[in-house]
Amino acid sequence: MAVSRATGAAVKAADRAHVFHSWSAQGLIDPLAVAGAKGSYFWDYDGRRYLDFTSGLVYTNIGYQHPKVVAAIQEQAAELVTFAPAFAVEPRSEAARLIAERTPGDLDKIFFTNGGAEAVENAVRMARLHTGRPKVLAAYRSYHGGTHTAVNITGDPRRWPSDTGTAGVVHFWTPFLYRSPFHAATEAEECARALKHLEDTIAFEGPGTIAAIVLETIPGTAGIMVPPPGYLAGVRELCDRHGIVFVLDEVMTGFGRTGKWFAAEHFGVVPDLLTFAKGVNSGYVPLGGVAISAEIAATFDRRPYPGGLTYSGHPLACAAAVATIRVMEEEGVVEHAATIGETVLGPGLRELAERHPSVGEVRGTGVFWALELVRNRETREPLVPYNPGPADNVAMAGFAAGCKANGLWPFVNMNRTHVVPPCTISVSEAEEGLEALDAALSAADAYAD
Amino acid sequence: MAVSRATGAAVKAADRAHVFHSWSAQGLIDPLAVAGAKGSYFWDYDGRRYLDFTSGLVYTNIGYQHPKVVAAIQEQAAELVTFAPAFAVEPRSEAARLIAERTPGDLDKIFFTNGGAEAVENAVRMARLHTGRPKVLAAYRSYHGGTHTAVNITGDPRRWPSDTGTAGVVHFWTPFLYRSPFHAATEAEECARALKHLEDTIAFEGPGTIAAIVLETIPGTAGIMVPPPGYLAGVRELCDRHGIVFVLDEVMTGFGRTGKWFAAEHFGVVPDLLTFAKGVNSGYVPLGGVAISAEIAATFDRRPYPGGLTYSGHPLACAAAVATIRVMEEEGVVEHAATIGETVLGPGLRELAERHPSVGEVRGTGVFWALELVRNRETREPLVPYNPGPADNVAMAGFAAGCKANGLWPFVNMNRTHVVPPCTISVSEAEEGLEALDAALSAADAYAD
Ligand SMILES: Cc1ncc(COP(=O)(O)O)c(C=O)c1O
Ligand SMILES: Cc1ncc(COP(=O)(O)O)c(C=O)c1O
Repeated sequence: MAVSRATGAAVKAADRAHVFHSWSAQGLIDPLAVAGAKGSYFWDYDGRRYLDFTSGLVYTNIGYQHPKVVAAIQEQAAELVTFAPAFAVEPRSEAARLIAERTPGDLDKIFFTNGGAEAVENAVRMARLHTGRPKVLAAYRSYHGGTHTAVNITGDPRRWPSDTGTAGVVHFWTPFLYRSPFHAATEAEECARALKHLEDTIAFEGPGTIAAIVLETIPGTAGIMVPPPGYLAGVRELCDRHGIVFVLDEVMTGFGRTGKWFAAEHFGVVPDLLTFAKGVNSGYVPLGGVAISAEIAATFDRRPYPGGLTYSGHPLACAAAVATIRVMEEEGVVEHAATIGETVLGPGLRELAERHPSVGEVRGTGVFWALELVRNRETREPLVPYNPGPADNVAMAGFAAGCKANGLWPFVNMNRTHVVPPCTISVSEAEEGLEALDAALSAADAYAD
Repeated sequence: MAVSRATGAAVKAADRAHVFHSWSAQGLIDPLAVAGAKGSYFWDYDGRRYLDFTSGLVYTNIGYQHPKVVAAIQEQAAELVTFAPAFAVEPRSEAARLIAERTPGDLDKIFFTNGGAEAVENAVRMARLHTGRPKVLAAYRSYHGGTHTAVNITGDPRRWPSDTGTAGVVHFWTPFLYRSPFHAATEAEECARALKHLEDTIAFEGPGTIAAIVLETIPGTAGIMVPPPGYLAGVRELCDRHGIVFVLDEVMTGFGRTGKWFAAEHFGVVPDLLTFAKGVNSGYVPLGGVAISAEIAATFDRRPYPGGLTYSGHPLACAAAVATIRVMEEEGVVEHAATIGETVLGPGLRELAERHPSVGEVRGTGVFWALELVRNRETREPLVPYNPGPADNVAMAGFAAGCKANGLWPFVNMNRTHVVPPCTISVSEAEEGLEALDAALSAADAYAD
């Protein structure tokens, strides 16, 4: 592929003529034509290079074009590129084994899907059939995918157009001290009140009607709200008390993102079902799945599990997972994510917050950080309103443009920017990104008191 | 990967320990460990080779390990293995262009997914939002995928465990002269009565409540019932009359399977939305999608389309599609599928039907054929009942075992075997498969009067 402007123009023209884009008004978007990517960077056809603080959609945990994983894909393609799910094939067996080795507790059976939404769909189905109960409790401020069940579990405005009120989902509030739904003043108070709220919600919904509680271990797209110590353990206890299946969605948090293999490890909690995708093979080939506890797997030992898909355990995707997990082990990627979070990103972002009045809060861990941008630090009024339209979004659009002008591709969602580079980002790259953020935040400061 | 018994045993052991299989009672399955595959064949670790009359799950339309598509995957892996969906990248643009060139009518915008179920989910969402209506009409005897909306549209027993009666789906009967739901005696009568049934169903459901009619162009898994001439055109007319979106699911029938690029071409019908997956890249990398009419695309020109997924238009999957479509053109794969159906498979299967009393009907086109196995040709009593349990399924299990003993891997669903080899199957391979079927059918004959 020639990196020429002409090629870039042709790529763009065919995209505009024929590609229908996710979550977009097709006539209002202007997709950048990307010519290549390597490590933490990508570049366009005009030779402009960007440091990627998004990891795509928070999935290229080992960065772009890791040579060992590329080679493994090439080898598996030559060997056995695809095979149907009803058979045992080496990369599928090996990926399942390596994943099961790393998932917490006895989550040792792996049901493979193509991505995160299908993983959530299947986890919910398993929970409903295991318990014989209809309802699912899920969090406001969450994202779980685009298929019907997954988007109805989601707690952000993308749910609304697909919500017919019949999905059997009840949303509740989770801890978020900065904008406390419980009027709490401390982490401990927020935690206690959030658990009380959940306990009451279970009691009033009827414990015997609730199949599952589905949570992102650390809510990702919705704002990287690290739960206070004790919260997830408290939810686990409520689930145990009422025979409710506890599903942790680690599609975004899994495989190193938070500085652990799975974010659940931070909290010493073992769910009954754990969904994954993204980091499992850095999205080099579409793959997701559900890790299943022994007890739930046993439900489907003699009774057929009524779910499946053509590409469950796709050999090429599984080979990429095997290679990715090995690379992460060999290169200490998970430890690196933890360290760079503690020593560079966390301190660097906090230092920016001190100097920029538009930064209301910094929160996160590993390579998983959010900056809450505000008009006023006292009132915490967000820089743009919840679910802004284009007219309301000028301040954040300006911030994003500022980042790009400084060679940084930012992750922006409502009034937040997330700092979610690859787990493999180097210290100097992280520092380069922090500098670009610094400049862009100065523009945001203009909107803050 | 060494093709040794020891490796095979290890692959199998890890599979049994860690892989949770689609649509299965985990304790009752015994997956064959597969060591390799090429063209129309695959083989196990004991050196047993099978002619694959299933194309995996009816998806390896160009056979296993096509060298040009493998090479294209390897090249794209080296170039840019993955990139997020909001950007324009060459293989995504090119795949969309090549697909849009081949889809019927003005279905020129392509929304990419990872597989068939997600394609159906998004087609239904588009139809609901485009019309502002809630309900979907779909066929008994159909399969559309495993996610919530897709499995609820499905008309086979796999729907039941996920059906809460709230998915907004109404099932109706489609033409199937051999087991006519309309007591018809001829194709023309079946067609007229089926259209009357649909017309009445629309009238009594309320045309203004119906967003979409979703049909497989030729129902696949449910039995390859080629619709009579005029049926799909009649459905198109009913949709036009009532402002209903017509969705054709070509996940299984698309990309050469029926001897055309899309099965809709056989019937001169253009739907409003067309779903695809499988054959688009022979499943070498997970990919599916929806081809969208200009009118429906325009609905989402200024209003955001509320659906998406992390791997929409995955570059590796799209590169495989580009290479597959080019190979299909260069090698005349679609024409070959038509010819081998007309000259070898069709005549050969009809000849088997003449000699084997257990064969009740042969139907199909291209490399897409079904044999209806019966206990009695007069009563048409199926060889095994609808939705058989293991105890009811002895006759079909025996038939399948007989095929395997003769080196043929058969597609079996209830009382049917489908002959769905790769579109690239040679004449001598097809004849070899017909001979193996011949022997296995003799065992089935023992159950027939
Ligand atoms: C927590 C979580 N769950 C599920 C999903 C959906 O995954 P996919 O886009 O692969 O369907 C996402 C995607 O961002 C996610 O972040
Ligand atoms: C007609 C049809 N639609 C949808 C699907 C679902 O596709 P997938 O298994 O890729 O989700 C299938 C799978 O067999 C199918 O045959």
